[in-house]
Amino acid sequence: MKTKTILLDSRPQGTPTEDNFKFIEQDLPSLQEGEVLLKSLYISVDPYMRGRMSAAKSYAPPYEVGQPFKGGVVAEVVESKNNTLPQGAVVVGILPWQQYIVHNGKGLNQVNPQVAPLSYHLGILGMPGLTAYFGLLRIGQPKEGETVVVSGAAGAVGTVVGQIAKLKGCRVVGIAGSDEKIAYLKNELGFDEGINYKSTANLQEAVAQACPDGVDVYFDNVGGEISDAVLLSMNKFARIAICGQIAFYNNTHPATWLRVEPLLLRSSALMKGFIVGDYAAEFGTAARELADWVKEGKLQYQETVKEGFEKLPETFLGLFKGENTGKLLVKIADRGV
Amino acid sequence: MKTKTILLDSRPQGTPTEDNFKFIEQDLPSLQEGEVLLKSLYISVDPYMRGRMSAAKSYAPPYEVGQPFKGGVVAEVVESKNNTLPQGAVVVGILPWQQYIVHNGKGLNQVNPQVAPLSYHLGILGMPGLTAYFGLLRIGQPKEGETVVVSGAAGAVGTVVGQIAKLKGCRVVGIAGSDEKIAYLKNELGFDEGINYKSTANLQEAVAQACPDGVDVYFDNVGGEISDAVLLSMNKFARIAICGQIAFYNNTHPATWLRVEPLLLRSSALMKGFIVGDYAAEFGTAARELADWVKEGKLQYQETVKEGFEKLPETFLGLFKGENTGKLLVKIADRGV
Repeated sequence: MKTKTILLDSRPQGTPTEDNFKFIEQDLPSLQEGEVLLKSLYISVDPYMRGRMSAAKSYAPPYEVGQPFKGGVVAEVVESKNNTLPQGAVVVGILPWQQYIVHNGKGLNQVNPQVAPLSYHLGILGMPGLTAYFGLLRIGQPKEGETVVVSGAAGAVGTVVGQIAKLKGCRVVGIAGSDEKIAYLKNELGFDEGINYKSTANLQEAVAQACPDGVDVYFDNVGGEISDAVLLSMNKFARIAICGQIAFYNNTHPATWLRVEPLLLRSSALMKGFIVGDYAAEFGTAARELADWVKEGKLQYQETVKEGFEKLPETFLGLFKGENTGKLLVKIADRGV
Repeated sequence: MKTKTILLDSRPQGTPTEDNFKFIEQDLPSLQEGEVLLKSLYISVDPYMRGRMSAAKSYAPPYEVGQPFKGGVVAEVVESKNNTLPQGAVVVGILPWQQYIVHNGKGLNQVNPQVAPLSYHLGILGMPGLTAYFGLLRIGQPKEGETVVVSGAAGAVGTVVGQIAKLKGCRVVGIAGSDEKIAYLKNELGFDEGINYKSTANLQEAVAQACPDGVDVYFDNVGGEISDAVLLSMNKFARIAICGQIAFYNNTHPATWLRVEPLLLRSSALMKGFIVGDYAAEFGTAARELADWVKEGKLQYQETVKEGFEKLPETFLGLFKGENTGKLLVKIADRGV
């Protein structure tokens, strides 16, 4: 049995390129007792992976050069010597970028294919959805009538943040990078206002206009100048959830510019970084609430699905160009074929 | 009845100078029903007053040019037409910088002269003590065995922060600006380690050495490069209380340098600004606990007391030279003379 595999070939200096990736074909070992053969169905590409391409300490350990990329994968068990994972079962887990994988089953979560399309387990019912849920509700703690701003608003996390904030009765302002995205946020997802940061000359003024009562909650997916513009409109006792800092992931030096400490002091504001794993104990409850909202039509969900294993590197690189709306992922194979 | 009064004569550009202050002598009106004549005994000088000298919005409203400075004052009622404040009563309040004041009694808190020296109500039992108490315990939430770092450690707030952290069983590291201060923190107040930022070539390394297990709580009185050095040693789930940013109070432009957001993200850390007034509902309880600790000898307290009303401007300006140890204040008059 052979599989195509994608390795980290070299660490990027600044923005990654296709040169940092390497395709190989390798033989898989035969199944041992307790193991399963997995076929990858959907593979997720996420901004945090950029951090793992570097050697520097971050919240997730670095990928090793010469070893496979890893990330969220939905896969089907196509052969099994494992009692709890029968042939035909669908699982989600952090897995290497391979078409086929031999695995001992540890750390895989079986999913019910009836609940939602399989790819949703990499998005609204998976890591991005849970990230939105915990960052907004645990750190942001939005109250009815408050103003919530989210950057990276059209992405996998941002779209869920804004919709949950609307469910909580807030005024929601999304910041994104194209008029199409802004139209989608307002017309499809019910955001109150949108700001296209690419076509706005004075972002600070645009935020102030979109938030006449100031900003109570800021869910920060991007960092940098976009965030500076929002932070300058913070209300007293504002809460800022630091979820992503994609503006800096390709930096080769520590990021510098506006100091937030004086702003936090002026507003008695709270800022907290987090990763979804901080809330692992509550994943089950949260995923059920998200699934209910999806079923009841309270949460809309959009994906951009590329096709084919060989599209993984270019799809990942597209994350840093701000081109995708909703969750970006790659379909590798159909189930059961 | 005449009084000397100190007015804000002009707003400072950068660091304030004596030119920004103006002494006048003025006549006081005669007492109306409900009013008291106050004699100032002790007047407090505090870093936050620098902010009020500027026109810019901050957490306390700006002083008006041509109007008196205001701040914490301990005063004695020397004449009274007020039922609740008899002659001889001692009060503390936010009052103008005057030798004598005619006041309607609103917002004044009567203090018991038996509890502690009168000046303590401007320090450990007053705003600085309460600031230390709430910032450390409510935001820092130190747990036994954790490492707590405090900057401005030898100041009115810092000395109390470090001692409460010791009471809670923490390893305490203080950052201050002279070897004498460091010796005082370690020998008199029981700090575990001290860093003299003025004589340390590599502050980041010094923090790492003084905190071999990393930093769990940082109580920030100063901001700037000192804070950067501490933040680079943050542990997962660190808590940072932003109390003061004296490094920037004399800046004429927004402060820029290290961005903290990527650091907060990496460590799932929490940073919160606050002012003591945020916790006003709990002042009574906190002041009683502080007074008990002082009586039981668990909290040491040091003051630097200058003498004479005319010393107020130069004493205030001394705050920005890092010269004082403990609470800095000016004695204006003796009680009952």
